[in-house]
Amino acid sequence: MVSVRMAESKVLKTCIGMMVNLIEEAAFKFTPEGIKMKAMDPSHIALVDFELPVAAFVEYNIEQPTVLGINLLEMNKIMSRGKAEDELILEFDEKQNRMSLTFKGVSTRRLSLPLIDVREAELPEPKLQFTATAEVLAGVIQDGLKDAEIVGDNVRFEISDNELVISAESEKGTTELKLGKGDKGLAKLNVKQPARAMFNIKYLGDITKAASSTDVITINLGMDLPIQLDFSVAEGKGKLRFLLAPRIEAE
Amino acid sequence: MVSVRMAESKVLKTCIGMMVNLIEEAAFKFTPEGIKMKAMDPSHIALVDFELPVAAFVEYNIEQPTVLGINLLEMNKIMSRGKAEDELILEFDEKQNRMSLTFKGVSTRRLSLPLIDVREAELPEPKLQFTATAEVLAGVIQDGLKDAEIVGDNVRFEISDNELVISAESEKGTTELKLGKGDKGLAKLNVKQPARAMFNIKYLGDITKAASSTDVITINLGMDLPIQLDFSVAEGKGKLRFLLAPRIEAE
Amino acid sequence: MVSVRMAESKVLKTCIGMMVNLIEEAAFKFTPEGIKMKAMDPSHIALVDFELPVAAFVEYNIEQPTVLGINLLEMNKIMSRGKAEDELILEFDEKQNRMSLTFKGVSTRRLSLPLIDVREAELPEPKLQFTATAEVLAGVIQDGLKDAEIVGDNVRFEISDNELVISAESEKGTTELKLGKGDKGLAKLNVKQPARAMFNIKYLGDITKAASSTDVITINLGMDLPIQLDFSVAEGKGKLRFLLAPRIEAE
Repeated sequence: MVSVRMAESKVLKTCIGMMVNLIEEAAFKFTPEGIKMKAMDPSHIALVDFELPVAAFVEYNIEQPTVLGINLLEMNKIMSRGKAEDELILEFDEKQNRMSLTFKGVSTRRLSLPLIDVREAELPEPKLQFTATAEVLAGVIQDGLKDAEIVGDNVRFEISDNELVISAESEKGTTELKLGKGDKGLAKLNVKQPARAMFNIKYLGDITKAASSTDVITINLGMDLPIQLDFSVAEGKGKLRFLLAPRIEAE
Repeated sequence: MVSVRMAESKVLKTCIGMMVNLIEEAAFKFTPEGIKMKAMDPSHIALVDFELPVAAFVEYNIEQPTVLGINLLEMNKIMSRGKAEDELILEFDEKQNRMSLTFKGVSTRRLSLPLIDVREAELPEPKLQFTATAEVLAGVIQDGLKDAEIVGDNVRFEISDNELVISAESEKGTTELKLGKGDKGLAKLNVKQPARAMFNIKYLGDITKAASSTDVITINLGMDLPIQLDFSVAEGKGKLRFLLAPRIEAE
Repeated sequence: MVSVRMAESKVLKTCIGMMVNLIEEAAFKFTPEGIKMKAMDPSHIALVDFELPVAAFVEYNIEQPTVLGINLLEMNKIMSRGKAEDELILEFDEKQNRMSLTFKGVSTRRLSLPLIDVREAELPEPKLQFTATAEVLAGVIQDGLKDAEIVGDNVRFEISDNELVISAESEKGTTELKLGKGDKGLAKLNVKQPARAMFNIKYLGDITKAASSTDVITINLGMDLPIQLDFSVAEGKGKLRFLLAPRIEAE
């Protein structure tokens, strides 16, 4: 038996909205501790790591750990139908092999979708030695990416002692966003060693576009390492982490 | 001579905007009592019944009953150009065989369109024994239809003693909106006998999509009968009624 | 050396946004007095005349007159990335043959674009004897043009002693916008002799669509002469003028 209830649908709505651009199918594990999901995108460039612990729910009834295979495109269609402030109930209908989502607001709306078989892939557990961290408003990253899109497909992230720099260049021109200590968009900057790497703009755009511009994103960066982006979920109770592989910079 | 004036263009603007999705051409009767129009959609699944009595006008000068054939697509283009709070004057230019619409606001704008020949078809006058009535916010119906669209082409409306249910199902999943006594979206529920029938989502969407989500729609329903939707026009002085044939439910 | 600074990027953003619909490439002259640009559209129907004097800048450092060839489509993409209230710095990077634009707001963003060769064409200096002038809200002209679009490709502008009339007609119908003395949309009307001419709607739409509906446009008109449209730039310090050739009216 799986039956869990959240005070507002917007927490899950936002998370699913951010995953769906990268991942089509995923296995969600409903455990006594909470809901977990980990998956790679089809081209194995991005890894999503999602956790929503019991504390993020108003009611949480799970008799035994259950893995539900979900088509995220279909689930996102349903989540999009909920209003942000609707109460949300998730249930697993074993007989029908369906998950149902109930939105309680002006009316009570229950939508269900068939579950699918999702093979649980062996996922890498990368141990990465990030050397620099920045807490940044999502709007700043979105700006840096949209600027970079004007000139090319790749974007460089660079953290030095004093600032985060998002830049791109091609024969079409150059773009460079600088966010330094004291700037409103920078909440925190923590640098052991300067770090720099280049990434595909489209992937970073897919990851960040569903965020609200005032959300805070934590960036972890190393020299030519993957970038790790953490979003605050359910007032910090949950976790939504994206890890994106770097592009090799042509020297 | 036909020359009538309304305090605000939005009344007619909304009505034309709701008809135009179903009907392309229509014969409007300008009579001493008011304006009337009745027409079926090309596939004879939906009937529109529209009346705007003299009381809805600020000035109303009609010497003799006149029937004007109007291409609703063209008329809707013109009505869309008016601002909601513009004063609106309708006139029939006999010499040119045109109808002119004058919007008075920041400037005075007069747009005219050629009249067309519309054969007045024999229209059915169905006597339907509806057994259940619900007064519902348009937004609730719009939600129920958009939910249902996720899983299929048809939607079931059902009124029982306690609630209105809008539902759909297919191999893609199920959707079900329940609106019960006490819910904010339900203004009135009146049930002689439970009623249920299935309809095409696209038609119901076309009928309801131009409504504001806070408009009240009166639903009349019977067992496998057409659905009758009434919109309040000009603070209840006018009438805009849609009748839509049911789909046969596969058992 | 070219390095100039404006308090808000929106002044240039709006001007470039209005030019880009007509002109793809242009030579901007950076002189000690200010920035100037004059160009015709590819079909030689419209002339743009733009001036932004030193007074419109917070800082203005130009050592010697410099002509920069700019692809307006690319420049508009960059200007669109700036927020209206961002501070804007324009610089010419001689070594790289690039112009850079720096937006200072929540972060500091510097975007550069390669300069291009623009042949400076011989431009006509028409001496036109306009006989009528009207100062009008942009929203009124936009309304008149969108109305006219319903019935055809051309629109007639007419100024008489008492009013401005924007009209169109075809077998599809007629449209006519009248703006008279006392109407809110008309700021000033100055008539030596009644004037009238017909123009292409698409061109006038391209010129006026980026304007805010509350901007004031000054119209100069003569009998079958080009129309001259002046927009107020930087609180009247600058000049953005469009001159559009008339269409010959079929009699």
